[in-house]
Formats: sequence, C-alpha cells, structure tokens
Amino acid sequence: MMGSSIAVSLLLSGHPIIAIAPIKGEKEKANLHIRKLFRYCDKSGLLSKSIPAYLSSLHITEDFYELKSCELIIECVVENREIKRQVYERVEKIVSRDAIIATNTSAIPISILQQDLTFPERFIGIHWAEPAYGTRFMEIVNGSNSLPLYANWVYELAHEWDKEPTLLKKDIRGFITNRLMYAEFREAFFLEKCGITTFEDVDKAMRYDAGSWMTFMGLFERMDYIGLDDFKVIFEAVFPDLHNGDGVPEIMEYLVNKEARGTQDGMGVYQYTKEEAESWEESFAKFNKDIYRLATEFLEERNYSENEFLERNK
Amino acid sequence: MMGSSIAVSLLLSGHPIIAIAPIKGEKEKANLHIRKLFRYCDKSGLLSKSIPAYLSSLHITEDFYELKSCELIIECVVENREIKRQVYERVEKIVSRDAIIATNTSAIPISILQQDLTFPERFIGIHWAEPAYGTRFMEIVNGSNSLPLYANWVYELAHEWDKEPTLLKKDIRGFITNRLMYAEFREAFFLEKCGITTFEDVDKAMRYDAGSWMTFMGLFERMDYIGLDDFKVIFEAVFPDLHNGDGVPEIMEYLVNKEARGTQDGMGVYQYTKEEAESWEESFAKFNKDIYRLATEFLEERNYSENEFLERNK
Repeated sequence: MMGSSIAVSLLLSGHPIIAIAPIKGEKEKANLHIRKLFRYCDKSGLLSKSIPAYLSSLHITEDFYELKSCELIIECVVENREIKRQVYERVEKIVSRDAIIATNTSAIPISILQQDLTFPERFIGIHWAEPAYGTRFMEIVNGSNSLPLYANWVYELAHEWDKEPTLLKKDIRGFITNRLMYAEFREAFFLEKCGITTFEDVDKAMRYDAGSWMTFMGLFERMDYIGLDDFKVIFEAVFPDLHNGDGVPEIMEYLVNKEARGTQDGMGVYQYTKEEAESWEESFAKFNKDIYRLATEFLEERNYSENEFLERNK
Repeated sequence: MMGSSIAVSLLLSGHPIIAIAPIKGEKEKANLHIRKLFRYCDKSGLLSKSIPAYLSSLHITEDFYELKSCELIIECVVENREIKRQVYERVEKIVSRDAIIATNTSAIPISILQQDLTFPERFIGIHWAEPAYGTRFMEIVNGSNSLPLYANWVYELAHEWDKEPTLLKKDIRGFITNRLMYAEFREAFFLEKCGITTFEDVDKAMRYDAGSWMTFMGLFERMDYIGLDDFKVIFEAVFPDLHNGDGVPEIMEYLVNKEARGTQDGMGVYQYTKEEAESWEESFAKFNKDIYRLATEFLEERNYSENEFLERNK
C-alpha cells in the first residue's frame, strides 16, 4: 500500500518511476491500486494533467535490473530485516555506485539496516506519512554510517515534493513522531485492557479532543496556549501513574495471528464491510484535501521562536 | 481562562450563568475576556443572536451567595486541592442539598476531591477541552463516591451543549485523553533533553503528521487503515525503548519558576510578542470554526463497530 502511495507522490512531482513488484500477482494489484489513488487525487483536485499523462512516467516491473539508471531507490517492503537485506543485495548489484538507497522503515534502525549494505554510506531513511501523496510530513534520517551529503540532497529535493521535511542527524528507534504516537498507543492499550475505556471511546476522544487542535498547534504550542503552570502540576500527578510495560499487547498478537489486515480485508480492531472500507478510503482522500488546505491556510505565518531563556539554559 | 470559555459555551446553549470571580480585579478581567470570546464566536458564525442578548444571561460577581439557586456549579480554579476544598466549602454552605457540584480538574482525582465535600455523592468531574465553546469533546467522570444519577443527568444535558461526551464510570488519573497526551509529552520532553529533537520540530512533526489525520480517525482506526501487522513489529521494537521516567522535566520547573504563562504573557516554551499572542488567539478561533465544520462533515456516518472476535475473546 505504502509503495503505491509513494509512487503516486513522486509521479505528481514529475519524476519518472520504476516500481518493482517482485511477488506474483503484485504487479497487477499495484497497477490497479495506483490508478485508484490517482482517481482520488483527481477528485481532490491534486492533478494538473490527465491521469494517463502521469501514468506514462510509471513503469511497473518484477525485474530489478530495470532499476539500473535510477538515482534514488526507496525500499518499502515488510518490516523484516532479512527480507530487506535481500532487497538491498539485489539492488546494490544493479544500481550505480552513488545511487542513494533509502528505506521507508519505521521499525528497524537505519544504523542496523545499513550494516547489510556493501556501501552503507549511501543508505538513509525516508519516512513518509500515509497517504504519501497527500501529507506534508517527512522524516529524513541519517544512520550512524550515512554520509550526510545524501540525506541533505534528499532533504532539499523533498521540498519539491511539497513536503515539510525534518532532518534527523541522529538515528533513533521510531524517529520522532512515531515514538510519540507509540507512547500514546502503549497507554491506550493499557487503559483498554484495564476495562477503563474501549477502543471506540479512545478514538472518539482523540478525534474530538486532539483532533480539534493538532493541525493548528503542536504539543508545546498547545501547552503555551492552555497555560504552563497547570501542566506542571498534572505532570507530577500523572507521569508516575502512566503504563511503562515493554510487551506487545496480547490483543495485537491475537489480531496478527488471525491475519487481520485492517481496512484492507475488513478485519482489524474494527470490522468493516467491503463498502465501508471503500467509502472510508474515499472519504479519507476527500478529508486529506480539506485538511491539507486548512493547514496551509493557518501554518505559514509563524514568526515566534523558542524562548531564549531556554536556549541560554541549555 | 477556562472559566470564561465554559461560561461562553453555556451561554451559547441558553443557560443563565452566575460567574464567580472572587479575586480582586478578576471580575473586570473576566468580563473583558468573555466579551472578547463572544467577538471570536461572532466572527466564527457561532451566534444566533446579538452579543448583548447573550450577555444579558450572564452575571459576574465576587459573592458566592448569588449561587444560591444554581442547579449545577462548575469549579475551574487552579489545580490545588486546598484551594478547591475552600471553594467547595463555600459553595456547599450556599447551594441546595441536591445541586450538582462539578470540577473541571484534569490533575486531581475526582475520588480525592470528593472527600472534601459534606455531600460527596453529588460531586462529579466535567472535563472540557479548550476552547470550551468551540469543541465537542467532554469527559464526564464519576468518583468512587458519586451517585451515578448526577453524572447521567449531566451526560444527557451535555448533548444540548453540542458536545459528544464520554462517560467514565471509573475515576482514573488524567482520565482518557489527557493520559494519552501526557504519555506523548513525557516522551517528547525526553527526546528534547537528549538532543535528538527540538520543541519546534516536535510541534512541526505533530502538526504535519498526526495533524493530517487525527480529526478524521482515532488511534485504532488509524492502525486499521495503515495495516496491523507492521504495527506489531514496531511495538515490539519501540515499547521497550520508550522513556518511563516519573519526574517533571527540569525545563518545566524552570519555566514555572519564571512564572511563564505561555501565550497569556508571551513567555512559554516559545516567546510571543503581544501582537503574535493576539493573532494566535484570533486565528485559532477561526481555525476552530473550520475544524469543527470539517469534523461534522466527516464523522457522522460511521456504522462499523469493534471486531466481534475481540469481544468474544475478552
């Protein structure tokens, strides 16, 4: 899914794309999925030319050899080091010595994946948010053996993809955003397990509370807006009470063992009919367009900066 | 600030309001602030009559005795148990035996505050989100000694305030949403302290990543949409690596000692000129209107429910 979405984003930015679909049946599936995404983009007013005009720059193949002249290879296979290693091995045999190889991983450290490359210095993380063609978020991550010039080059280029990238000089598990979200997931699973809330109520509360300001302000702008003094008191009370467990929630084990794939097969934390899953994707595409416009309207005129007292105290 | 915002919300819903401002100078300040909020509401198209018509149902006073005939008293003073206790004592001496006394606290458990009341069974939590007049979120919380009929009554009434309330049968520190947000704050302060990121980059990442979907989907809808299997792998890798500290971040101690009040005095995690702080409040009021409308458009036709396999396994 993510691969198709990234391909669409790069096609929208005018790049020619070679998409590798090595698993049997995936080529046809990817083709259909990319066309579907382009129809969403069309409905959302994201296209400046016809869908066939974009698709003429796309070539889907099972043959890695066709990557030969590519300057940037973005791997987005399953989060499994051995499978990724095999992909990098095949890619490195084909591409030029200075082609950049990037991964969309959000699970495995760049510094670790890097160890499996012949030329690790050209390996970086490019972490997209879903849907890749409709969000501005991007984390570009150096591993401990990356040469900074590669990430810097992609960082500059990413602005042409209509992104607002963040450049991480240091590799950390989960990068920034995901670490913050996973801290939230960890607590939410715990509260559900204790019978204090339900998954549905967590989602309702997130949409109506955080969802009512997150596009406008981040955590710390929020804190400044609400008033700092109360926050300190609350931190004192709540931090020691938060869940600190290491383990994967049992319910996740259960769902993954059941091969639940969420909206893709209608079975996840929720269950969806085929129609619900489809209308969900369509209305999210429409929502994306609206939220993207809203963010543009409100986010581009901020001149204040971090409190200089803080700077001095560091 | 929150008191004014709650007063505006209830005035918009047609309730007559007695607002208690016992501290010297607060009465005038509240009056000005409430008028300012009404001007934002007006600009946002939230008013169905003139501002003076709403204000005619508002009476601001320092005299607790004027609460005598009130059916519902909402306390929103500073997060300090002793100050709250003094407020409850004064209120209980004046109001009728079956008036509901509620707190907007998000720091102190309802079950603890309740111990300071003569009639604890009529005490509940009503937790609003800022701005109270422009968000649909509300948590209504029973303490361990609350009689459920009071919370149930407020729960029903809250729908007339145009809220989407959640009813918590069990009291827990921080309730639902705040616990999830504080888990995020804890991790964010940690990452900043380690030099991995800055407050500004956390905010940027939140606005462009979480902010691009949070209004549309909660955490678990998100997980279903992205695909469950990768999440399990990531949880395994990241949960053991998250920060589990108990302490209040030093930088918070420092800011609070400096009496930094965020946008209210221009000094917080960021620093704001008077103009920036004002334009921030104005544009957030405008944003609120837009996001409220967007949420309404996308959130009201969901029929899917929690996966029945999960239900069966509980």
